[in-house]
Amino acid sequence: MSELLADIRSFISERALPLERAFLSRPFNELEPELNALRSEVKRLGLWAPHLSAELGGRGLSLTEFAHVSAVLGETPIGHYLFNAQAPDIGNCELLHAHGSAEQKAKWLEPLARGEIRSCFAMTEPEFAGSNPVWMATSARRDGDDYVIDGHKWFTSSADGAAFTIVMAVTASDAKPHERASQIIVPMNAPGLARVRNISVMGDEGSGYASHSELRFTGVRVPVANRIGAEGAGFALAQERLGPGRIHHCMRWIGICERAFRLMCERAATRELSPGHLLGEQQAVQHWIAESRAEIDAARLLVLDTAAQIESRGAHDARDRISLIKFHVAGVLQRVLDRALQTYGSLGMTDDTPLAWWYRHERGARIYDGPDEVHKSAVARRILKGFGLNSK
Amino acid sequence: MSELLADIRSFISERALPLERAFLSRPFNELEPELNALRSEVKRLGLWAPHLSAELGGRGLSLTEFAHVSAVLGETPIGHYLFNAQAPDIGNCELLHAHGSAEQKAKWLEPLARGEIRSCFAMTEPEFAGSNPVWMATSARRDGDDYVIDGHKWFTSSADGAAFTIVMAVTASDAKPHERASQIIVPMNAPGLARVRNISVMGDEGSGYASHSELRFTGVRVPVANRIGAEGAGFALAQERLGPGRIHHCMRWIGICERAFRLMCERAATRELSPGHLLGEQQAVQHWIAESRAEIDAARLLVLDTAAQIESRGAHDARDRISLIKFHVAGVLQRVLDRALQTYGSLGMTDDTPLAWWYRHERGARIYDGPDEVHKSAVARRILKGFGLNSK
Amino acid sequence: MSELLADIRSFISERALPLERAFLSRPFNELEPELNALRSEVKRLGLWAPHLSAELGGRGLSLTEFAHVSAVLGETPIGHYLFNAQAPDIGNCELLHAHGSAEQKAKWLEPLARGEIRSCFAMTEPEFAGSNPVWMATSARRDGDDYVIDGHKWFTSSADGAAFTIVMAVTASDAKPHERASQIIVPMNAPGLARVRNISVMGDEGSGYASHSELRFTGVRVPVANRIGAEGAGFALAQERLGPGRIHHCMRWIGICERAFRLMCERAATRELSPGHLLGEQQAVQHWIAESRAEIDAARLLVLDTAAQIESRGAHDARDRISLIKFHVAGVLQRVLDRALQTYGSLGMTDDTPLAWWYRHERGARIYDGPDEVHKSAVARRILKGFGLNSK
Amino acid sequence: MSELLADIRSFISERALPLERAFLSRPFNELEPELNALRSEVKRLGLWAPHLSAELGGRGLSLTEFAHVSAVLGETPIGHYLFNAQAPDIGNCELLHAHGSAEQKAKWLEPLARGEIRSCFAMTEPEFAGSNPVWMATSARRDGDDYVIDGHKWFTSSADGAAFTIVMAVTASDAKPHERASQIIVPMNAPGLARVRNISVMGDEGSGYASHSELRFTGVRVPVANRIGAEGAGFALAQERLGPGRIHHCMRWIGICERAFRLMCERAATRELSPGHLLGEQQAVQHWIAESRAEIDAARLLVLDTAAQIESRGAHDARDRISLIKFHVAGVLQRVLDRALQTYGSLGMTDDTPLAWWYRHERGARIYDGPDEVHKSAVARRILKGFGLNSK
Repeated sequence: MSELLADIRSFISERALPLERAFLSRPFNELEPELNALRSEVKRLGLWAPHLSAELGGRGLSLTEFAHVSAVLGETPIGHYLFNAQAPDIGNCELLHAHGSAEQKAKWLEPLARGEIRSCFAMTEPEFAGSNPVWMATSARRDGDDYVIDGHKWFTSSADGAAFTIVMAVTASDAKPHERASQIIVPMNAPGLARVRNISVMGDEGSGYASHSELRFTGVRVPVANRIGAEGAGFALAQERLGPGRIHHCMRWIGICERAFRLMCERAATRELSPGHLLGEQQAVQHWIAESRAEIDAARLLVLDTAAQIESRGAHDARDRISLIKFHVAGVLQRVLDRALQTYGSLGMTDDTPLAWWYRHERGARIYDGPDEVHKSAVARRILKGFGLNSK
Repeated sequence: MSELLADIRSFISERALPLERAFLSRPFNELEPELNALRSEVKRLGLWAPHLSAELGGRGLSLTEFAHVSAVLGETPIGHYLFNAQAPDIGNCELLHAHGSAEQKAKWLEPLARGEIRSCFAMTEPEFAGSNPVWMATSARRDGDDYVIDGHKWFTSSADGAAFTIVMAVTASDAKPHERASQIIVPMNAPGLARVRNISVMGDEGSGYASHSELRFTGVRVPVANRIGAEGAGFALAQERLGPGRIHHCMRWIGICERAFRLMCERAATRELSPGHLLGEQQAVQHWIAESRAEIDAARLLVLDTAAQIESRGAHDARDRISLIKFHVAGVLQRVLDRALQTYGSLGMTDDTPLAWWYRHERGARIYDGPDEVHKSAVARRILKGFGLNSK
Repeated sequence: MSELLADIRSFISERALPLERAFLSRPFNELEPELNALRSEVKRLGLWAPHLSAELGGRGLSLTEFAHVSAVLGETPIGHYLFNAQAPDIGNCELLHAHGSAEQKAKWLEPLARGEIRSCFAMTEPEFAGSNPVWMATSARRDGDDYVIDGHKWFTSSADGAAFTIVMAVTASDAKPHERASQIIVPMNAPGLARVRNISVMGDEGSGYASHSELRFTGVRVPVANRIGAEGAGFALAQERLGPGRIHHCMRWIGICERAFRLMCERAATRELSPGHLLGEQQAVQHWIAESRAEIDAARLLVLDTAAQIESRGAHDARDRISLIKFHVAGVLQRVLDRALQTYGSLGMTDDTPLAWWYRHERGARIYDGPDEVHKSAVARRILKGFGLNSK
Repeated sequence: MSELLADIRSFISERALPLERAFLSRPFNELEPELNALRSEVKRLGLWAPHLSAELGGRGLSLTEFAHVSAVLGETPIGHYLFNAQAPDIGNCELLHAHGSAEQKAKWLEPLARGEIRSCFAMTEPEFAGSNPVWMATSARRDGDDYVIDGHKWFTSSADGAAFTIVMAVTASDAKPHERASQIIVPMNAPGLARVRNISVMGDEGSGYASHSELRFTGVRVPVANRIGAEGAGFALAQERLGPGRIHHCMRWIGICERAFRLMCERAATRELSPGHLLGEQQAVQHWIAESRAEIDAARLLVLDTAAQIESRGAHDARDRISLIKFHVAGVLQRVLDRALQTYGSLGMTDDTPLAWWYRHERGARIYDGPDEVHKSAVARRILKGFGLNSK
């Protein structure tokens, strides 16, 4: 494992970082051939998709093992993509692996695992609060052996160029809230499925993998066999993917923190304020460094301990922790990025380092996957239940 | 004055806001004709450049009076431009008005005041810390009746499309640190002056007025008559422009805060979390609103009181306050924007509101004009001098 | 006015501060004779109770004028007491002055104004949340020309040694919530009124004026003529006293901040970290000083502006601001005290400076008078009403 | 180990907590007999001083094992005392165990381990910054087989009633800074050693174990055999005790956090704001609970991981972490206590819960053992050295 980590670390610093600057200033689509050339190299080196089982071409790492890998990949915005460990494909792979039919696996999972196609996950709807995942309007009406899907989704990440999406749609509107929806595979070229636009996020519409789309489903027809798992199991499956997905996310953030920390230290150690006086001699900068080091170390341990709890006790028992790390690590991430950027002064505002990219795009860390505020309230209500308080 | 303010407020909400969305998603250069049409309207309504004297086509507002105007203009990213009150032109106008020769005024100030040309101010150099303004390499060597200028500048805002720049250059390298440099007017089309690039800032190179350039001066020759004020007076003049400039900036930030506050309240009052339950019923959101209201009100009073002090006691006597408002208001700005963006959830990440634009570009508020940390230390050292401590 | 302020300032620094250290280490009761000697001196100098009208022996200052005085008195924990401007007597005086009968004024207000007696205000009950002032159990049952009062109060400040209390008691339990209670004067020696204990607050039961008591009313009988104002007007009167009371409190906090700021600067300017290296050269300390200066200045302006609004528009119209300054200034107070204490290191933990006293007792600033959280929610709900949201 | 922990936990909740309230309101000296009775019980149950070796009457726990114990003991202010695991005795025991002579062990360590005597550690001097431990004036001059000690110490915790102190004194003033001082045992009844006062800390002089004294050494004569370790080894020994001592401290703080967290949840789950509406339904309180849970969990893992690093790599290699946990956990402690106290409202200000005691006394956590600011700078300078910056 430590050898694998070392190999991945080398690849990231020697092969990926030289391409990072281009990623920060050129459209993803333009860069894709170069990125894919590196992907081939990763495969050749036997480092491909280490979270996947050997039969799918990976290394079969456990959740905790891959957590360490994810922190290394997170050190550059292109890391996960190069190793085919990028969201949302990684989550879709997990889902299909656990719940896909043989046919679904052959058709969608295998090319996904090989990196031949990409996928997306259509969940959030603009008209409904993302903090309330059971509230949605997209419906999949049964018509013979087909579902007919109508609805409106947005922030469907990486839809541009994806081969298929998994859509969350209501299949039984009068069931209990958590049993209303199902997850259904829809090819992106299905008639009636329109990619309305790539949403301009933080000044950038992005392209290809690096984009977030608005989708509209109008009478989109897919076979019932495209449903993953049982009808009405949509939320249960979403819940299931949440635990490991949270670990992946949080360790990616830890990776970003580590890189930002290093960048901050490098700047502090070399930038002169006046001849012979270095930025790192400023106590304010020293305190940013010390506080960041403590916060990153503590956050990393918290995520790894959560991964261990998921492995030993299951995601359901560890659900408080899975909520806690969401907002805790997102908070650390934002503080560390803010300090690192400030250390760079006006250079920090430019795209000559990845800090400005993370600063603006990872602002979403406190929003995506449920805003921090919702997670805090949810976990507190569960804790208070143990003290006898049953609030709504 | 209150009538003028009401007129400006109306213009901003009725004429400017409809164009704002376009500004957020299209290049400045593309939008310029529409913006300039609005500028003509502003002139026609007699609202043009109210900070300028009547003879320059303005309304001759005092610093405090214009402070109120600046807060209104700040409510949209295009406000100051529409009224020809945008940095850096506003500062260049003040400088030329106070210290320009008759010839300089006729040639540069008057068309600037009329909005026929734009200008820029070349001060910061990439190789030297912006926190130490006397440390620079750009030199203006006297050669007969000319200066020959060599140097490297960056973050020269709005250089793209400007008619001239005022450059800070060392004219006497062996003088005392604060008497080394002079401010010299250089036409942007002067031979040897190259605009190397528009710097990619927060993912965006911008264009025209909305850009920050890197410039290189190679043997650029201008007549000595282009110097503003006395030789070696560069820093003294820069110091002088600092007080009013700080008020303009800070009131612009207050304007941003007010707009963000209103956007936050509108969202809170209308976004449903579940049928019939509104976001504004969440205590977390209520607290953001209350804290923001208190912080904005207090910050506004602090800036206005500082303007009054500058007017009554002069900028030198008010210099502690001029430092204090820099970092204090920048801090309020960042917190208010962060809360407003969070209130919008994923919509806050998009360019459908101006929040994301401000979130990323106004991150610079804590950096430009000297990083907050430098101002904090400087003001504290002056305060501690009053307690008997003379530190370096 | 500026002469009066200067005189008060001199008295505080020359006469009051020398007694402060004794106040920090000895029981109030023991110190009372010395304090009262100083009170006589204040009277002799014509500085007594400047907020009171001339006929009551004061100087008839307006709310805004007295606000400046209050900030000076606040610089030492004994300041307000020495000038007979201490809570809760100051509020009781205002109340009796505005709403007391001629008899009540003669019997209670006049000796209070002369400083011959002290008083208290019994409102909070341990069984009910202070954040919900209309919820209480203490009742005053009409029996002929008497009220018979039964109930349980605590945090009745300064009850120990007081001549009378004003008690808030329910006189009409089936009226609308805000019309249920009345304010009634009860002599502290009334049969059935027991002072159960001085509550141990932050390790200290205190004594005399400097204490907070638990009271029990058991069949306490007072004439109906002891009621202040109309029956059921208890909350309306409490509301009325809130505005000016808030200004007094907040300006007292500003005074504490100013003193703490000066103490912090004195320490920074004189404490050596190693031979020749002073604490004030540490950037962390410099930043505390700068941030404190900005926060105190802004907070002071906010309170003064609120006082001006109360005077010009009335407390009802200024009620948002009256809520805002509560939590905003309490927050500034806590941060400034925390920084000042830290600057003193272990000396800051001792009672050799007033910082530790304020640190522990003014922790209550965020609790007394309604916890900050309640004020924040209340003001936000009122603001959001303006945006169309009517929440409970 | 888990059985031992369960036994200790039971003892704390069943036997110690009932005495806690008395500790909060009565002088330590008065309570000592009752505490000592409980100590006997602890011994009888075989739970005594579990960090000590079996031959000294303990259980020989490793650093990490005892860390878990320390968190449990920390849940009440009297916990460590009852198990004879209280600072500074625990540190003195470790020191004497590792470096004491046979005679020193027999005379001082053994009765200390049995809890028959108490001890103290005289290091800090009022005239010198605690942040600079090598700067002190107390000297121990060699005179034949004796040392003659002169000096002034303060914040010598638990000197009142101690049998002996270990004093840090300069034995070679012209040696290198870190080789100047030695640690010497001085019986508290030695002629010339005066306990000047118990310092009034946060309003309380305390007594006995629960006090901090000022000491004056005037020609105090002790045999050279009282020196611990080599002459000039004072700092090296102090350094050595630092690592384990930091773990003890930090885990005690974690224990305080856990108790405060439980108290906060109990209050939230039971306090009504209005009939049927509980405090824990307030989102602000929920967020305090969630944030506290995350911060405590992360901090605990960070301390335990540091303990493991000390055990595996030694304190020297783990010294960055030993610095990091100091300020990181102190920060968490202060935030958690502040939230818990606020949850209790005015009750939180009283001594009816231990929160107010911790709030005021544990404010010292950010000061004692070197102020946080010094640790932050020190660790940052070491980190930056790895990036090539060698600052002073």
